[in-house]
Amino acid sequence: VSAGAASLGDGFLTALRALVPGDGVLTDRADLAGYERGWRYGQGKARAAVRPTTPEQVAAVLALCHQHGVRVQPLGANTGLVGASNPDATGEQLVLSCERLKSTIAVDAVDRTVLVDAGVTLSALNTALAGHGLFFPIDLGADPQIGGMIATNTGGTCLLKYGDVRKNLLGLQVALADGTLLTQLSPLRKNNTGLDLKQLFVGTSGTFGVVTRAVLQVCPRPKQKATALLAANDGDAVLAVLQRLEADAGDSLTAFEAISRHALALTLRHGADVRSPFAGDLPAYMVLAQLTSTLSESQLDLPALLQQTLAQHLETLPGEGIADVVLDPKGDGWHIRHQVSESLRAAGRVLAFDLAVPRSSLARFTQTIVAKLAASHPFVTVCDFGHWGDGGTHLNLVWDKTAAPAEDQALVQALQAMIYGICVHEFGGSYSAEHGVGPHNQHFYDAYTPAAIKRACAALKAHFDGKGMLGTVRLGS
Amino acid sequence: VSAGAASLGDGFLTALRALVPGDGVLTDRADLAGYERGWRYGQGKARAAVRPTTPEQVAAVLALCHQHGVRVQPLGANTGLVGASNPDATGEQLVLSCERLKSTIAVDAVDRTVLVDAGVTLSALNTALAGHGLFFPIDLGADPQIGGMIATNTGGTCLLKYGDVRKNLLGLQVALADGTLLTQLSPLRKNNTGLDLKQLFVGTSGTFGVVTRAVLQVCPRPKQKATALLAANDGDAVLAVLQRLEADAGDSLTAFEAISRHALALTLRHGADVRSPFAGDLPAYMVLAQLTSTLSESQLDLPALLQQTLAQHLETLPGEGIADVVLDPKGDGWHIRHQVSESLRAAGRVLAFDLAVPRSSLARFTQTIVAKLAASHPFVTVCDFGHWGDGGTHLNLVWDKTAAPAEDQALVQALQAMIYGICVHEFGGSYSAEHGVGPHNQHFYDAYTPAAIKRACAALKAHFDGKGMLGTVRLGS
Repeated sequence: VSAGAASLGDGFLTALRALVPGDGVLTDRADLAGYERGWRYGQGKARAAVRPTTPEQVAAVLALCHQHGVRVQPLGANTGLVGASNPDATGEQLVLSCERLKSTIAVDAVDRTVLVDAGVTLSALNTALAGHGLFFPIDLGADPQIGGMIATNTGGTCLLKYGDVRKNLLGLQVALADGTLLTQLSPLRKNNTGLDLKQLFVGTSGTFGVVTRAVLQVCPRPKQKATALLAANDGDAVLAVLQRLEADAGDSLTAFEAISRHALALTLRHGADVRSPFAGDLPAYMVLAQLTSTLSESQLDLPALLQQTLAQHLETLPGEGIADVVLDPKGDGWHIRHQVSESLRAAGRVLAFDLAVPRSSLARFTQTIVAKLAASHPFVTVCDFGHWGDGGTHLNLVWDKTAAPAEDQALVQALQAMIYGICVHEFGGSYSAEHGVGPHNQHFYDAYTPAAIKRACAALKAHFDGKGMLGTVRLGS
Repeated sequence: VSAGAASLGDGFLTALRALVPGDGVLTDRADLAGYERGWRYGQGKARAAVRPTTPEQVAAVLALCHQHGVRVQPLGANTGLVGASNPDATGEQLVLSCERLKSTIAVDAVDRTVLVDAGVTLSALNTALAGHGLFFPIDLGADPQIGGMIATNTGGTCLLKYGDVRKNLLGLQVALADGTLLTQLSPLRKNNTGLDLKQLFVGTSGTFGVVTRAVLQVCPRPKQKATALLAANDGDAVLAVLQRLEADAGDSLTAFEAISRHALALTLRHGADVRSPFAGDLPAYMVLAQLTSTLSESQLDLPALLQQTLAQHLETLPGEGIADVVLDPKGDGWHIRHQVSESLRAAGRVLAFDLAVPRSSLARFTQTIVAKLAASHPFVTVCDFGHWGDGGTHLNLVWDKTAAPAEDQALVQALQAMIYGICVHEFGGSYSAEHGVGPHNQHFYDAYTPAAIKRACAALKAHFDGKGMLGTVRLGS
């Protein structure tokens, strides 16, 4: 027991070690470091960390904490981008890591569902499902744990076809702050018997309870895919081709991404092993349109379908919206797409935004931001890329580090106020499309959340966690 | 003003008429009759009915009721099957009918969403969408209003592909009991900013608030469909072919229904213009498998795809699970399917159940019920039919009216206790798969709902409607 841990109470730590024996409890500072810092944002100080292996252990730990007045911070794979899974700065919180809560992955292939422990990673789940010809259709760069995905309601690049985590969640077990284990794990697709309680724990950052187990609906694995890269002259052309693809190939359209000229140029300059797929100048947007199908190649020629649909669209489209179309059998487009974020960071100072607006407004929204910034902050380059199929945009601002101090908080705050304000107030958009709410954006939650929602959250927090033991995010202030 | 209405207070009625002028307020008994009786169950007595035309009028009516202590029963198209939209027997409730709340159907074809008033009917919505090549993919026999569909979380026959109402709901506006209009109508597909408040109003029978307006995600209309009818020798064969169709044609499989032998036989006897699609004896189950596609016939030969997939399945299937397969270009299978309910009622006394179990358990569940009843109630015939693709079954018991008194409440209660008990306790199933909760099944809600869910509902009811003004269902007892 380290000196620092003593103030948690030796009786508490002894009892905690009895509940989670072996090396289940960590108190040494060196051991705790990995639990204290977030993936991109978030840095706190934990008093101890506990690593239970079963839902019952999680519940017992929470009951003990409740009894001793010890606040708890649930932690998944620590891949979140808003600091919601790291301890605060008080040094008083117990980190409840789900990393060892991963013994259950029970696939029911006939039911097309899986019962899974919260600490199972997305990749481990998909490895288990692959043998059944199934997969969990949330596609993203990181490898989070299922519990964290539920607490964040992860979206990803295939939301257009498969929806977010919420839409694929059938059953849930959560441990409440007082140690009650609330178990609703039937894999029912239809069950209209009043309040769907599990919805309260989706996307609420663990503040109402700790996800311990879930039943997910999973999907047949596609047998083929086809991707096209399009050079679009403007945002309206991007939306027009999206509409056409949905009308003609809606069952197959799985991803529809676009990368703006500036983001593409910086990625081509700083990325590894990348080149432009287009012969001419870089377009206003490079569109990446992907079809997938459970049909075999002998039943449906997916690349031909994609090419024909786009060719028909080009014939009927008024004006010159699409300058070029190339099929992309080798995945060069995704290779570029996955390097955008890091390439922008290599190019200069980056201020990242995770926004969404109604997708029909995405072109106009981006134009509005570009025009505003050109007038107010001409040294800033707008490098937007994202999920045009669902209205999501990772609108990143990039500037040369010599143009403004790297840590100019006044500049950052001015840019955030301007862009979030336009997004939320003028376009009815979201200041956090897919990253959720945590200490990193608590300030914007406080500013933009309607009072009625905060009041409902306060009532729910009082109901589920009246002593305020769970998490660091404050939804009900 | 009728004599009965006077006890609502003449001041209240005068104020109500001022809020909703013209013939917006009804008090004559003859006018009220149509608002008092449910589609299948439910019969109460209204003191008056009000028919607001805008969300603001709904809110103003609720504020007035709140002030005067008048309880309110929201009513949509009155097509529900659990009596949740009809007044209770006290004669004291004001029915708030949404029938005139239907001026807004605003389609955004690029966004693929629609803003719609709660009183718009499903058919009116789909008429407006058809011109854009879009539709709202909830398919069912009745023609409900959108508000009622949200309060019930309607499922229907295409849930397998498109999900229920919840999965297609992007934005919501509700009027709370005190007259607050809670407006969250942005059509965002990605918005992870804490609690998704609208989820509380989905499937909760209007007890937390009255739905006034919604934003729905809508879908490209399929350009073709193909249906096959299969003669299955048992329930396991039904599940095996379902699994095969999902693996090979999962993007296209839209409906997967099965009708048991007894249900089919009675429908062939009592239905209009029906005949068996099979040459031999009636099978244990007639399966109706429907594919749809947004691809045109020149791009994908859907009937051929369906036939090939089923032929491959028959070659590889162990045993003799499927006795016959016929393609059904004329829709004879749906014609039979839509006549089952009425045909059973023509055949004798019917006790209807709206159940769901994990779909991999549906064959075993039905076998269990059949065996139990054969021993305990041999005069009862199990006529099950339903949505095998999603685990839902309309398990109907039919018996000759001479075998037991038509209104034998003790028999009905014994059968309900047995079947609901097996469904909920032994199979983790649902006593109300798609019809929701209302006075008709309040007793079973009380019996089967976990105490933790009731406590959460009580907290929410206290928060949203502390005076208990809205609706008749009691979720938080």
